[in-house]
Amino acid sequence: MGVLVFLLMILPAVGGSHMNLMKAESPGPSVGKLVPKVKSTAKILYGIYIFLSILQVVLLLLGKMPLFDALTTTFGTAGTGGFGIHNSSIAGYSTYIQVVVTIFMILFGVNFNVYFLLLGKKVAQAFKCEELRWYLGIITAAVLCIGWNIRGMFGSVGEAMQQSAFQVASVITTTGFSTANFDAWPQVSRTILVMLMFIGACAGSTGGGIKVSRFIILAKSLNKEMHQYLHTRGIRKVKLDGKVIEHEVVRATNVFMTAYIFIFAVSMLALAFEGTDLVTNFTAVAATFNNIGPGLAKVGPMENFSLFSNPAKLVLTFDMLAGRLEIFPLLLLFVRDTWKRY
Amino acid sequence: MGVLVFLLMILPAVGGSHMNLMKAESPGPSVGKLVPKVKSTAKILYGIYIFLSILQVVLLLLGKMPLFDALTTTFGTAGTGGFGIHNSSIAGYSTYIQVVVTIFMILFGVNFNVYFLLLGKKVAQAFKCEELRWYLGIITAAVLCIGWNIRGMFGSVGEAMQQSAFQVASVITTTGFSTANFDAWPQVSRTILVMLMFIGACAGSTGGGIKVSRFIILAKSLNKEMHQYLHTRGIRKVKLDGKVIEHEVVRATNVFMTAYIFIFAVSMLALAFEGTDLVTNFTAVAATFNNIGPGLAKVGPMENFSLFSNPAKLVLTFDMLAGRLEIFPLLLLFVRDTWKRY
Repeated sequence: MGVLVFLLMILPAVGGSHMNLMKAESPGPSVGKLVPKVKSTAKILYGIYIFLSILQVVLLLLGKMPLFDALTTTFGTAGTGGFGIHNSSIAGYSTYIQVVVTIFMILFGVNFNVYFLLLGKKVAQAFKCEELRWYLGIITAAVLCIGWNIRGMFGSVGEAMQQSAFQVASVITTTGFSTANFDAWPQVSRTILVMLMFIGACAGSTGGGIKVSRFIILAKSLNKEMHQYLHTRGIRKVKLDGKVIEHEVVRATNVFMTAYIFIFAVSMLALAFEGTDLVTNFTAVAATFNNIGPGLAKVGPMENFSLFSNPAKLVLTFDMLAGRLEIFPLLLLFVRDTWKRY
Repeated sequence: MGVLVFLLMILPAVGGSHMNLMKAESPGPSVGKLVPKVKSTAKILYGIYIFLSILQVVLLLLGKMPLFDALTTTFGTAGTGGFGIHNSSIAGYSTYIQVVVTIFMILFGVNFNVYFLLLGKKVAQAFKCEELRWYLGIITAAVLCIGWNIRGMFGSVGEAMQQSAFQVASVITTTGFSTANFDAWPQVSRTILVMLMFIGACAGSTGGGIKVSRFIILAKSLNKEMHQYLHTRGIRKVKLDGKVIEHEVVRATNVFMTAYIFIFAVSMLALAFEGTDLVTNFTAVAATFNNIGPGLAKVGPMENFSLFSNPAKLVLTFDMLAGRLEIFPLLLLFVRDTWKRY
């Protein structure tokens, strides 16, 4: 959400291209639909952002966190940046603080559309949002699976669930804070966490990754196609929140996945020259491209990316930027026509 | 190619559904376009198949291979099955035999359309086939990269190239024969081989995998989309071999990729419960879903799949069937409407 809305707010309007850009970047219920003017939309979004941030700072201060720590932790949570001021990230803080951070990571991963609906007192409509339901459903399922899987590593099932919830929230929202070395967790937990890296947060949130709504659109168009095989003359539309998803949005989602797969493959190939193992390389690309932070093995939560050579770091830097900018703005730089026009 | 064409030849025609099925299963220049009748097309395809098989048997016999070995090796090559009669697969045979098998693996991975064009003496048109060019280009690039990467492990660069060529041909055509333990090769070679597993052979060949033409279609629609961002009013069509790719084919390709990703993710999740490492699980799914045979680590060329539990074997069995049947026929079994109609 951040960069795009910021640019849209400060840049002078040039025809309808802003809305095209916003539409392309936010599948599902577009943020641009909140109010007619893009600029006013940006203001509302920033209002929500600031309100949630202040709330988090206050709650962290109530947990006796120093003001500086509360501010930096909130900045790291709100922007899903995950930059902790301690080497141990959030592990050194109390359980209360960890729970607060967990909740706010999840809140900042929600489509801001939902908050706008809540502001307008459309509570029922807000909770009917399919992306929100899937997002919360995936989080709940992952927390329970992982919590149960790691219960033997902690004092109680409750503690295991709390640690599971923190790591799940951190990874799916692409924040990247950590309170435990999940690289040492059993295979089931590690596999689920790697998958959450790809799923990412909701569209129109501050989180990265592929986004829940993209997967919903893909799953629904798959379902539609299956039915079309059987009923060749039937016409079935892909719908989200009761509204028909335009053909262009489905196509853009598919093309996004294609671009994603190609960039991922090229990055993997480039990292292969490092001689590091496949799990390190795969999760290094996944963690940078989805803007998470930690991966597994040699780039796990207790490690960093310093082992890579400079060329490899350049590739991963590109991946971080491409992931944050939703791929296309960055890819367009490599199309000759982009430069011809100016 | 095999199962589908066989079914089409023996089943009585029911309206136009055969052609729909063939179209859906073969992106790019469809095999169904060879001659008007599906049945005649099948006969031509089997003619080519039998001719190439006999040629391979004769060439293997000339290399002093016993008749039984020559027949079974040919059957394993032609169907890209990769079932060797020795535990050492093809490693125990002479270099001449290995080279013959390499060449025929590549030949059986070519779109049979190309052979039909050659039969009709349309040589120029045959060699202009984009899929063929990409297929041979990818093989050449992979053989050179891997050969150079492993040159220190063999007596000469020539031998390294020959071993590289065998493994590359075996993996990209999804045959699965082996003459070397490529799991012990350096990271660059292993990464390239894993990628070739996904690329697969040409559409309309006997090979499996995602197919070269699907990637060409995806790359071209990505390119088209990039241009559409810049020239919002321009209309650009995705073309293959000079012909416009119908919208339905592009959509079917995208939906195929979606189904592929979902099945892959679910399989990975199921295998996570085995406790085996991520590389083993990832390549086990890749090797079965793409119908290759060997993967890496604990399912490498010198290993087998016996380490998995029965439930995991069921998942991998499903993947093998789904991969061989190009996913949709098998997925349709799980749609309620399929059963309602009959």
